[in-house]
Amino acid sequence: MTVPTTDSTRLAYRAWRPVAQPRAYELVVDRIEEQIYAGVLTVGDRLPAERDLASMLGVSRAAVREAIRALAAQGVLASAVGAGRDAGTTVAAMPSEALTRFLRLHVALANFPMPDVVDARVMLERGSVRLAARQRDAEALRGLEVLLTRMETPGLDREEFNDLDSDFHIALAEAGGNRLVADITTAIRASMRLPILQSCQATGAWRQISTRLCRGHRTIVDAVASGEGDTAAAAVESHIRYAYEALLYTR
Amino acid sequence: MTVPTTDSTRLAYRAWRPVAQPRAYELVVDRIEEQIYAGVLTVGDRLPAERDLASMLGVSRAAVREAIRALAAQGVLASAVGAGRDAGTTVAAMPSEALTRFLRLHVALANFPMPDVVDARVMLERGSVRLAARQRDAEALRGLEVLLTRMETPGLDREEFNDLDSDFHIALAEAGGNRLVADITTAIRASMRLPILQSCQATGAWRQISTRLCRGHRTIVDAVASGEGDTAAAAVESHIRYAYEALLYTR
Repeated sequence: MTVPTTDSTRLAYRAWRPVAQPRAYELVVDRIEEQIYAGVLTVGDRLPAERDLASMLGVSRAAVREAIRALAAQGVLASAVGAGRDAGTTVAAMPSEALTRFLRLHVALANFPMPDVVDARVMLERGSVRLAARQRDAEALRGLEVLLTRMETPGLDREEFNDLDSDFHIALAEAGGNRLVADITTAIRASMRLPILQSCQATGAWRQISTRLCRGHRTIVDAVASGEGDTAAAAVESHIRYAYEALLYTR
Repeated sequence: MTVPTTDSTRLAYRAWRPVAQPRAYELVVDRIEEQIYAGVLTVGDRLPAERDLASMLGVSRAAVREAIRALAAQGVLASAVGAGRDAGTTVAAMPSEALTRFLRLHVALANFPMPDVVDARVMLERGSVRLAARQRDAEALRGLEVLLTRMETPGLDREEFNDLDSDFHIALAEAGGNRLVADITTAIRASMRLPILQSCQATGAWRQISTRLCRGHRTIVDAVASGEGDTAAAAVESHIRYAYEALLYTR
């Protein structure tokens, strides 16, 4: 909860805990981020030279360099060497992969309870298929059809099935046309890759489970193709809940 | 779309683009992340010493140091100096703030279309209020009530109103009890802070708009308190859509 409390409560609470002293480079990172949030720095803009930044912010050039490296590692900044027009450090459009990677790490380490991850997927994918059913994009539907057919190949390797399943859910999210939602969905599915794969490999009921998963996919795609958003939403929810029941809660 | 293509198409596509040569530290980052995804490294685990990692991976100690710094900047690793039991680099539980910060940067830079951001919020918050209506947690409801009352204070500063509004939506997401969803909702709301604030400050119809926003909040909280999930979901959707209509699409 973020209900503000009085200043004295807050002070008493903070009183004798260890002081977190931010390092110089962290302060530089904060300043650069502030400029981005404020819209002053935007994609493609060049950062001032290292020397100038250091003197403006009153920190060492090493601190500036470390801040730039940390932000570059996250895809926020891009550096090019040389002295030409393209040299220097610019603000980058963070690629979807950066978000996927970060969210995947976060889900892996923050140790969210499995039912929370399932509910999050349900919320997002219900919304995506509703959008997809409104769009009924022919190319997206063809792509989903290709994946369905491949997943129905008899004797398909479990790891390949799992990867195609992941592709299917990403394609479904993309068929909704909302890139932010598709990025988050992709990240959550990717973070679950390993536990899902391990369960696929461990289960003794693989044939029944995979058949039922494929049937679930067909029901979703049929509903999307005929523009029935409510049916598609219900179908994707029961499909996701079934998959986790069958694969992850039983271990 | 992630429909796999044939190898020759893929090769032709990649043929004459610049070669992206990963730097040594990036390869070290990849290796550490693989261990995390595989569940070999988990929260609290200690990384091998810098010297050992460098020799095992066949890279310089500088590359290992840079990788550790980049991951520490993202909250994945924590380093402690000294020689005691707690010294060394350990895997950290990434805090919610790290995700919020990253997603906020991503939304700011990836430049998602506004309707996509709105739809994402609608999906997540519809889901959250449904969960909240099922829980009807007394403490969460009291917290929401406190925020509502503060927002209804006549003559409240627009910036303060905006911050309380943000707190309200975060508290609503937390009342659903799903931390992953709450984290994502918080991040998306935070990424919109500036444009929403600017619109609040620019509009000539502030009194009507803020009154209607407060009424929307009341309707949501009432529905949650009486356990009516469907009503709460409909109310939060129309509230969010109204806010963006009134504040952001009209500029």
